[in-house]
Amino acid sequence: MSTTLSELATITAAARAAAPRAARASGAERSAWLTAMADALDAHTAELVAIADEETHLGEVRLTGEVARTTGQLRLFASVVLEGSYLEATIDHAVPSAVPPRPDLRRLLVPVGPVAVYSASNFPFAFSVAGGDTASALAVGCPVVVKAHSGHPKLSVRTAEIVTEALAAAGAPDGLFALVSGREVGSALVTDPAIKAAGFTGSVSGGRALFDLASQRPDPIPFYGELGSINPVVITAAAVASRGSELAAGLATSFTNGAGQFCTKPGVVFVPEESGFEGLLAEAAAEKTGGQLLTDRITAAYPESLSALASNSAVQVVLGSVEQNSAENGASPVVFATTAVAAASEPDRLYEECFGPTTLLVRYSSEEELVAALKALPGSLTGTIHAESSDDTAEVLDLLSERSGRVLFAGWPTGVAVTWSQQHGGPWPATTSLHTSVGATAGRRFLRPLAFQDAPESALPDALKESNPLGIPRRVDGQLQL
Amino acid sequence: MSTTLSELATITAAARAAAPRAARASGAERSAWLTAMADALDAHTAELVAIADEETHLGEVRLTGEVARTTGQLRLFASVVLEGSYLEATIDHAVPSAVPPRPDLRRLLVPVGPVAVYSASNFPFAFSVAGGDTASALAVGCPVVVKAHSGHPKLSVRTAEIVTEALAAAGAPDGLFALVSGREVGSALVTDPAIKAAGFTGSVSGGRALFDLASQRPDPIPFYGELGSINPVVITAAAVASRGSELAAGLATSFTNGAGQFCTKPGVVFVPEESGFEGLLAEAAAEKTGGQLLTDRITAAYPESLSALASNSAVQVVLGSVEQNSAENGASPVVFATTAVAAASEPDRLYEECFGPTTLLVRYSSEEELVAALKALPGSLTGTIHAESSDDTAEVLDLLSERSGRVLFAGWPTGVAVTWSQQHGGPWPATTSLHTSVGATAGRRFLRPLAFQDAPESALPDALKESNPLGIPRRVDGQLQL
Repeated sequence: MSTTLSELATITAAARAAAPRAARASGAERSAWLTAMADALDAHTAELVAIADEETHLGEVRLTGEVARTTGQLRLFASVVLEGSYLEATIDHAVPSAVPPRPDLRRLLVPVGPVAVYSASNFPFAFSVAGGDTASALAVGCPVVVKAHSGHPKLSVRTAEIVTEALAAAGAPDGLFALVSGREVGSALVTDPAIKAAGFTGSVSGGRALFDLASQRPDPIPFYGELGSINPVVITAAAVASRGSELAAGLATSFTNGAGQFCTKPGVVFVPEESGFEGLLAEAAAEKTGGQLLTDRITAAYPESLSALASNSAVQVVLGSVEQNSAENGASPVVFATTAVAAASEPDRLYEECFGPTTLLVRYSSEEELVAALKALPGSLTGTIHAESSDDTAEVLDLLSERSGRVLFAGWPTGVAVTWSQQHGGPWPATTSLHTSVGATAGRRFLRPLAFQDAPESALPDALKESNPLGIPRRVDGQLQL
Repeated sequence: MSTTLSELATITAAARAAAPRAARASGAERSAWLTAMADALDAHTAELVAIADEETHLGEVRLTGEVARTTGQLRLFASVVLEGSYLEATIDHAVPSAVPPRPDLRRLLVPVGPVAVYSASNFPFAFSVAGGDTASALAVGCPVVVKAHSGHPKLSVRTAEIVTEALAAAGAPDGLFALVSGREVGSALVTDPAIKAAGFTGSVSGGRALFDLASQRPDPIPFYGELGSINPVVITAAAVASRGSELAAGLATSFTNGAGQFCTKPGVVFVPEESGFEGLLAEAAAEKTGGQLLTDRITAAYPESLSALASNSAVQVVLGSVEQNSAENGASPVVFATTAVAAASEPDRLYEECFGPTTLLVRYSSEEELVAALKALPGSLTGTIHAESSDDTAEVLDLLSERSGRVLFAGWPTGVAVTWSQQHGGPWPATTSLHTSVGATAGRRFLRPLAFQDAPESALPDALKESNPLGIPRRVDGQLQL
């Protein structure tokens, strides 16, 4: 069922042909395309969830929620496009008296062209065929070619059928959206001359390989990869004393939810030595279950990763059993513990992302030990601080801010709200870029600036015409205007 | 006089140490640093211009203007920082009733950390030690390590001394700014773990080599290179008929100014066959001179490039002499002509950037020929259309927009105003990225988003505090507020 290279060539040629039409479509038209997609997916929720559950084992409740998240995402981008700030429309009128004389100069952002989207295993809706990368690229006027994830092929095909039909009914141009599948085609897609940018959510190894292909092209293209993240959490002694049980319950849910397969799972948790938190967590996590993991690869990798960690003499198992985890039995929760001194001395072995219901507690006996262990952290999507107002957390906040894209002061990182202010990205290897893949600004990845100098009104796009026919926020002669 | 690798390690360590202090500095402080740099450079204009003229032969008038441009650029960024929109401050208040409940989420842009800046040969001030890359990086809070260009070593050292002194007097942290020199250090700089992004203006070969090093790092960093551009110009028959002499005079000045060594020099000009434009240009350019080129390499390359073009049977010399150009004689203006059919059939040989006072006229005898030749163009910084209102230029405009970052409808591309709306960048090989290296938004290259979830007011940066103490534009609950 893989797409052939010759089929791929036809598909990317169609995307290239659709690009000028997608770029010329008004914000209202693109907004309508996204809304039509959302409506169609909502209408097919039950059918899609059934297929997804069969392929991913994520359960009906979670998957139904994920469809709603996905269509909410499409609707957010529909509103972002109408609001118009994303165009960054900027007008500087001519200043003939300046030395040298200044021309009339007007700038906006325009779509880069066809975008390749690589689906994720762990979000079969929200980061897959009609997920955030697709929604944000279509929103800003880029055709999309999605590479299906091998973990949910039937769902990918069915989702694509629904999207294709909805787009056609809404009057979107042919070639605006297509699905491809197969490993060979995945590599060919990112090097296809028609493709001008790529979005990816997946493993460090897979993402790095595609990033390298994108960078080594004769004409390099931006590759926006979300690769790997251990999402450190710091808990202070005062926080354990004041609300230890609540924190333990929250952590137990966060690291086991979705069988521990969220990009934002808290993978390493810094806890004060002898604070009693481990006992509270053991209690809270006792009833938690894991379940069947997403793919054969993840299923095989989980017990291997557990065994590797368990074989480290600086690490103890404090909850669950490494041995009872096997590809046959399904995944069950395991909590490890180590010391901040050990973590600081071998971060490459201890700070490693592991898909599955497991987390590593790192015991610290002093602020100095904690700081040294935090300094050894790689980049992450998130960092979390659970502290009391009596704690001085300035240094911890600085260290987590430098190493992550979102810092939490309450709750757990596994929830990723889709809003104007969301940031889903962080220093390498969390992501490859300075952009977000979730939230209203995700479209910025697929836009490039274009300026018009001394253009007649008739040649200007609506966003830059003197009368502001779209009624969008613009910066005029240096002043932001609503 | 090259920096050693051990000196480089000391310098980048100092930049790394300065990064948190630079990031924490208020907009007002950073604005004051930039203003201090501008004031100091203005005060030393005469001294700096004398050194620059000795090293670059660009002449006192041009160089004095370039100092003013450079200090104007520093002052623009000083105002951009104070205005505060560049932070993209975004606040979404909590919505406890949402399903799932939405946390309080606040986002802004923060500096990436130390930035490497590679100076250009052709703008010893505006794209060098204290040029646009340096100004925009410092403005947004990133320490800068500048690699001096070998074409103006004394000027680089003297500029760096003045900048260093001004920054120290203005209270900027040690390590915020440094100069290094030497080829080996240039490569080592972009792979130094302390460096988080790089800005470059120069050749395709040099830029590609550094881009590859940046992309192949264990932790890839963004490399913003401005590499090469031929800046196509299209002139219609109606425009020649209505104002041919004026256009010829403008072109003659634009391709010979600065001895034809601007990134935005019009390198290929599409003219209607038998329109008489060539005669007008020959007249206008007759008195133009070239002069000594910037560096030994450029001096040697110019006659070689001319000879290569002259040896092409599809190309004629219509003004000047290839033979009289040699490394010994200095550069003199040469205008070539070819046909649109030839250009479309061998773009790799005919559409090539050549530093020096030369341009290539491409004669077209029909709209179809013109379109085919435009379709073969590589990416450029600029594209220019000289037409009359009676002309239908829609297709030409689309083709130039797809292939450039700035489209002009009057004037010539060699002037690059430093404004809010400027765009200096374009599809590969014009630049490697979707960002500009000139104008108010240039700082966006050196910023990454950071979100705060459920943060106590005391942990928030001023830009995100509820009361908006900085008084900057922000987006609150989806609404842009001034």
